[in-house]
Amino acid sequence: MSIATVSRVLNGSDKVSESTRKKVLDVMERSGYTPNAFARGLGLNTMRTVGILCADSSDIYLARVIYWLERELRKNSYASMLCCTGYHLPEKEKYLQLLLSRSVDALILAGSQFIEENAQDNAYLYEAAKKVPVFLLNGVLPGSGAYSIVCDDALAVKEMTDELIALGCRSPIFLYRSLSYSGKRKLSGFCRSLTEHGMNGQERSFLCPAGIPETVRFLQELEAQGIFFDGCLASDDELAVGAVKYALEAGRQIPADLQITGYNNSLLSLCSTPEITTADNRSEFLCTTAVSLLMQVLEGKDVPERTMYSANLIRRATTRSPK
Amino acid sequence: MSIATVSRVLNGSDKVSESTRKKVLDVMERSGYTPNAFARGLGLNTMRTVGILCADSSDIYLARVIYWLERELRKNSYASMLCCTGYHLPEKEKYLQLLLSRSVDALILAGSQFIEENAQDNAYLYEAAKKVPVFLLNGVLPGSGAYSIVCDDALAVKEMTDELIALGCRSPIFLYRSLSYSGKRKLSGFCRSLTEHGMNGQERSFLCPAGIPETVRFLQELEAQGIFFDGCLASDDELAVGAVKYALEAGRQIPADLQITGYNNSLLSLCSTPEITTADNRSEFLCTTAVSLLMQVLEGKDVPERTMYSANLIRRATTRSPK
Repeated sequence: MSIATVSRVLNGSDKVSESTRKKVLDVMERSGYTPNAFARGLGLNTMRTVGILCADSSDIYLARVIYWLERELRKNSYASMLCCTGYHLPEKEKYLQLLLSRSVDALILAGSQFIEENAQDNAYLYEAAKKVPVFLLNGVLPGSGAYSIVCDDALAVKEMTDELIALGCRSPIFLYRSLSYSGKRKLSGFCRSLTEHGMNGQERSFLCPAGIPETVRFLQELEAQGIFFDGCLASDDELAVGAVKYALEAGRQIPADLQITGYNNSLLSLCSTPEITTADNRSEFLCTTAVSLLMQVLEGKDVPERTMYSANLIRRATTRSPK
Repeated sequence: MSIATVSRVLNGSDKVSESTRKKVLDVMERSGYTPNAFARGLGLNTMRTVGILCADSSDIYLARVIYWLERELRKNSYASMLCCTGYHLPEKEKYLQLLLSRSVDALILAGSQFIEENAQDNAYLYEAAKKVPVFLLNGVLPGSGAYSIVCDDALAVKEMTDELIALGCRSPIFLYRSLSYSGKRKLSGFCRSLTEHGMNGQERSFLCPAGIPETVRFLQELEAQGIFFDGCLASDDELAVGAVKYALEAGRQIPADLQITGYNNSLLSLCSTPEITTADNRSEFLCTTAVSLLMQVLEGKDVPERTMYSANLIRRATTRSPK
């Protein structure tokens, strides 16, 4: 048996007879390499491993996404290789290459922090999508060949704003933390609603520093500057918790004087008293859909490059009851 | 070149000359398998991958642990293969075998849910520890050969209880969610403090159902049964959030009528108003220590099988100020 034959087996070539292939794998097995990743990888030309990239797996939203992704991948006999990139482009790019060098069968980029403002900063994602299937969870990169599954955050925030206004809110503001893909979509939903109600959304949207005490201070400063608000829509639940604490300290009644909404339907929205009205962006559905589509792609099936689904508004005690 | 030679290279045998080894790896490289995990794995006889098992990566405490573990492993050029087992023994065992079959270099079991009550239920951990280094984060399995890094939860709860009593609490209760290794240690700390103060800790400890509304109801029922408490020590922050909500609904002043403490120093303890006194069990320190010890073990160094460190008490608004 020549090394070329072994190489063909290693390559998963179909020019090798089944009996030869078996013989080569048998040697590996006798050498103590089975059942294990090497032999299986070699035999099937796949490691049955998917790389999951996220900015920060300890983020309460991303932690749930990773949980559901790992569970669904495992159900399909794929292992999950996790890599937390942080929020800076050079690291994102470096760790994506790292996962590719680990021969992952596909990449899942969890969270909308992976789409950069400048088109050329996304070039490495285009390159990656040529090598393996790339799935963007809550991000879209048109023409890249990457698959997108996104929650319609714009629509959800538009509808929450509409509802707040219908419930008597006259001066809503929008608090956001970053202009990620998802952050921008939420902002656009707020602005669309305000335009329809004869207000300027851009003027009433504020980039708020991270951290609960920082959010409290930020709202105190807005008040000190004479900017009145009787509704505060936050782009995530942690910002909404800060808004609740601001209201409690300022002696403003929730929801009579100030209505507040969060986003993500995380445990944080339930830890606050009163409990916070929020949007459930269905992280379980996001992940089961992503993995289901990924499995179809790996089987060579044609699936849509873009899938969008709607969020679910969860009404709680920080907004008024509909009449 | 015989297949036996290839097999020897695959095995990382030192009976193969460097030039032969190079030739075999070159073929693999030309076959398009480099730079990648196969070739590197084959050449070095390691996948440079560590398996991380945890019950639930979306748990707010475990999510932080996974974040720090992945970061530290990556710094040492190890990839992280994540597997969430849930809380049932058969799955824990199955998924541990799954990771072993993936040729991981070591296993890290995050969270104290992996130590079972019955000694024979831990047999699979003893077996695993014979194959690869096994690290238990917040668990101890004497004689198994597994390495343990644990926070001294017993001491932390003992000191918190002592402090609450020193601050005027006469009738403390302890709420816990499970009798995991860590759960038992916390309970023992509470009981030790109560014994020293002439009370019976077992009688004042309660297994509380999961969920914030369930905790509120549970405390309302205790009250209805005539069980008085002016201090509530909870084994995690989520339970403490439930205790805060119970007090707010019952019109009991925090901390004048009721002092409350949590555990973990998670974001949940900051989302509550008032913010919750808690113990910081230093998840970053836990993980950097674990990975540092693991690297030493992989280098063949001798490290202690058991490392214990103390938690840090974070005093906030749910407990009285020391005089």
